[in-house]
Amino acid sequence: MAKDKKLVEAITSMDTDFAQWYTDVVKKAELIDYSSIKGCMVIKPAGYAIWENIQHELDRRFKETGVENVYMPMFIPESLLQKEKDHVEGFAPEVAWVTQGGLSPLQERLCVRPTSETLFCDFYANDIQSYRDLPKCYNQWCSVVRWEKETRPFLRSREFLWQEGHTAHATAEEAEERTIQMLNVYADFCEEVLAIPVIRGRKTEKEKFAGAEATYTIEALMHDGKALQSGTSHNFGDGFAKAFNIQYTDKDNKLQYVHQTSWGMTTRLIGAIIMVHGDDSGLVLPPAIAPTQVMVIPIQQRKDGVLEEAEKLREALGKAGLRVKMDDSEKSPGWKFSEQEMRGIPIRVELGPKDIEAGKCVLVRRDTREKTECALADAPAAAASLLEAIQKDMFERAKAHRDSHITDVKTYEMFKDAVENKPGFIRAMWCGDVACEDRIKEDTTATARCMPLKEEEAISDVCVCCGKPAHKLVYWGKAY
Amino acid sequence: MAKDKKLVEAITSMDTDFAQWYTDVVKKAELIDYSSIKGCMVIKPAGYAIWENIQHELDRRFKETGVENVYMPMFIPESLLQKEKDHVEGFAPEVAWVTQGGLSPLQERLCVRPTSETLFCDFYANDIQSYRDLPKCYNQWCSVVRWEKETRPFLRSREFLWQEGHTAHATAEEAEERTIQMLNVYADFCEEVLAIPVIRGRKTEKEKFAGAEATYTIEALMHDGKALQSGTSHNFGDGFAKAFNIQYTDKDNKLQYVHQTSWGMTTRLIGAIIMVHGDDSGLVLPPAIAPTQVMVIPIQQRKDGVLEEAEKLREALGKAGLRVKMDDSEKSPGWKFSEQEMRGIPIRVELGPKDIEAGKCVLVRRDTREKTECALADAPAAAASLLEAIQKDMFERAKAHRDSHITDVKTYEMFKDAVENKPGFIRAMWCGDVACEDRIKEDTTATARCMPLKEEEAISDVCVCCGKPAHKLVYWGKAY
Repeated sequence: MAKDKKLVEAITSMDTDFAQWYTDVVKKAELIDYSSIKGCMVIKPAGYAIWENIQHELDRRFKETGVENVYMPMFIPESLLQKEKDHVEGFAPEVAWVTQGGLSPLQERLCVRPTSETLFCDFYANDIQSYRDLPKCYNQWCSVVRWEKETRPFLRSREFLWQEGHTAHATAEEAEERTIQMLNVYADFCEEVLAIPVIRGRKTEKEKFAGAEATYTIEALMHDGKALQSGTSHNFGDGFAKAFNIQYTDKDNKLQYVHQTSWGMTTRLIGAIIMVHGDDSGLVLPPAIAPTQVMVIPIQQRKDGVLEEAEKLREALGKAGLRVKMDDSEKSPGWKFSEQEMRGIPIRVELGPKDIEAGKCVLVRRDTREKTECALADAPAAAASLLEAIQKDMFERAKAHRDSHITDVKTYEMFKDAVENKPGFIRAMWCGDVACEDRIKEDTTATARCMPLKEEEAISDVCVCCGKPAHKLVYWGKAY
Repeated sequence: MAKDKKLVEAITSMDTDFAQWYTDVVKKAELIDYSSIKGCMVIKPAGYAIWENIQHELDRRFKETGVENVYMPMFIPESLLQKEKDHVEGFAPEVAWVTQGGLSPLQERLCVRPTSETLFCDFYANDIQSYRDLPKCYNQWCSVVRWEKETRPFLRSREFLWQEGHTAHATAEEAEERTIQMLNVYADFCEEVLAIPVIRGRKTEKEKFAGAEATYTIEALMHDGKALQSGTSHNFGDGFAKAFNIQYTDKDNKLQYVHQTSWGMTTRLIGAIIMVHGDDSGLVLPPAIAPTQVMVIPIQQRKDGVLEEAEKLREALGKAGLRVKMDDSEKSPGWKFSEQEMRGIPIRVELGPKDIEAGKCVLVRRDTREKTECALADAPAAAASLLEAIQKDMFERAKAHRDSHITDVKTYEMFKDAVENKPGFIRAMWCGDVACEDRIKEDTTATARCMPLKEEEAISDVCVCCGKPAHKLVYWGKAY
């Protein structure tokens, strides 16, 4: 029983210590374990199953837009990494270097990919010749390595899983269109599937990706009021094309450089799910992404007929297309409830001898703990519509939380006060000068999260930091 | 048109130069491209889509047996790799070493996983405590690195994609059962989905996996008569458990070592598909694994109504659940036929103005090139049943080829003659002495592929090499 005890022991309350609460949840919901390699984690079945569902749904949405999957090598020769100046400056300090292959030292060091722009460019330089070869819309699912100093499960680890899309286009307009298209795929996925509302915006020059002309981002607000960058989409213009000489012959037989994009989402999304939806009993999974949507828990299961009826119910729920399991282990119903809650399974169905006699069962929502009774025959339909309601309500709750944690400020005093006392996004005007951005970060630790794509009314006409004329509205915040 | 030309240029005939034929097919069917990293390949969309189908179907079969997916770090600290003596001896000479992380040298070298037994053992040592935690049946899909000197696309590359299953059990019997169960999953998958007949067998001591008590294998015969090891399943007994101290408390509260297995299949399977089914026009894909099963090719497509009818037909075939595409590019029908053949698409549907007038279309099988006509309305049903026939016929043809390339020999002279003059498997008796195995390899380059699991009648009662009494029947052959 040692294992059960660990699981249902109270976890740290999120209000007491949010960071510790997070760590408790990832461990006790059995999403990950630490490994012998500092900063690298083991993703356990409960965690990996969430990632599989994310992959499956994102991949489907990518393919609908014409994306094809490929696989590039995991190594990048040092000389290749160095071809694009900004890019190497951004990544070289945090890569892992392979210096020996088998028993011999390598002639040239290879880094383990931190991202694969350089590999795709090297490939496209050979593969693209004519306008008929364009566009190329390739994506890969893989792991990447960034030698971070401070690590946290899912949020920042030395190795993480992700997808990286890399496209090449004939024109600048088409590249920009693809950049925004993929940002919208990401945003819709977060809102419709993960029930996480996001701000779609553009990064400042300071915050953009190493080598990009423009970086777009979706920013989500965690329960503690910190922001999480949840997906990014970059427009490279023809910068990489010039560095790697990726040219095509256009219809008039002239050589032109391609225009490129890249876009990525990572296992960090699992961290977002935890921090947006979780509570003091553990994980709360949106039904659309939950590996198990319904857990049937028999009560007094040793009594005649209880397990048989519970099994019938499980089968009926499964036939209705729900992802359902039954917990018929020897643990007490109380333990089982706690486990199901810790793991964030959206609905639990309780079924005991009295329920069976009355021909009914009890459905309990994980998110609100609300109980409803229904006739056994109606359970599949009732559970299905409850799952829909949970998905919708979880989004609405997260959105209400996010919207109530946005503070508009006009002065620097208000800004500093908000960072200190009002967790969440701060909306404030900015002149566009990186000096102000640097000062704000130094004074408050808040960073420019993004400039929203959707037009929003100006808050004032001067920069919140320096007081000079300002036209850019920025979402600021502390971030993971 | 440069691209088209490249594609339909004749490839080397397989009878002239099988190795060059293979290289031509992987390149011209656009399965891979070479990369800047020696021995690592780029898997292009047409190649990766085959791998996705393999993954999807294998993963489904794994999960039906209770396997759960996880993800382990890609790095192994040197000290961890060294814990099991045979294992480190087998792998240390061919791993890539990371010696620097970011700007600092590492205190301990990390190898990029060549396989993950040591990582799973390290994890299981902490994760398994009681008999209630058993069995553990975990699998991961990932890439691994082995610093090979000679490389060939799909067959042997420095980085390749695979799945590796790692299980832990309470008893030796259960571990053996799982080892055989997974071998059978592999064999059934090869025969039912890839249409590749395999011999299920056990490896000799010399050929078994580094650290295993027993290695089981499925061996397929390529068109040129060489064998390809297509999947392996290992029983580790409690060897790794003792090296890593993986113990559990049994029902009587006594400490016991677990018994472990591992099993893997790789992108090498794509090489097997090419070399078993391909012909001088390129790839021939079994319908069950083909990313595109049917290609609709309009004839005289500029004539009124042709494209519309072709599109209607494509839709109807898609609605019937077939994976169908239409090639309405500006190329000539002849080019399109050659492309469809090079890519191995199982059926091409030709539809021109005369066909439309007659309310019919022409179905052409890729494997036999046989043409059949059918009424437009019957096309979906006709194509579906033709796909079934192709799948079945491809397996039967490969099996007939395999069976006609097995030579039984009783004497060493016959053995040497068979290696020289009769490409294929050689069945011969063996005394069990590694000295004979070594001598055979030195004299002939043939190796012991496996000792078949299915009982086969003895060929003689003495070893083909030394003449001493022998009870083991072995399949020998040259191998990739």
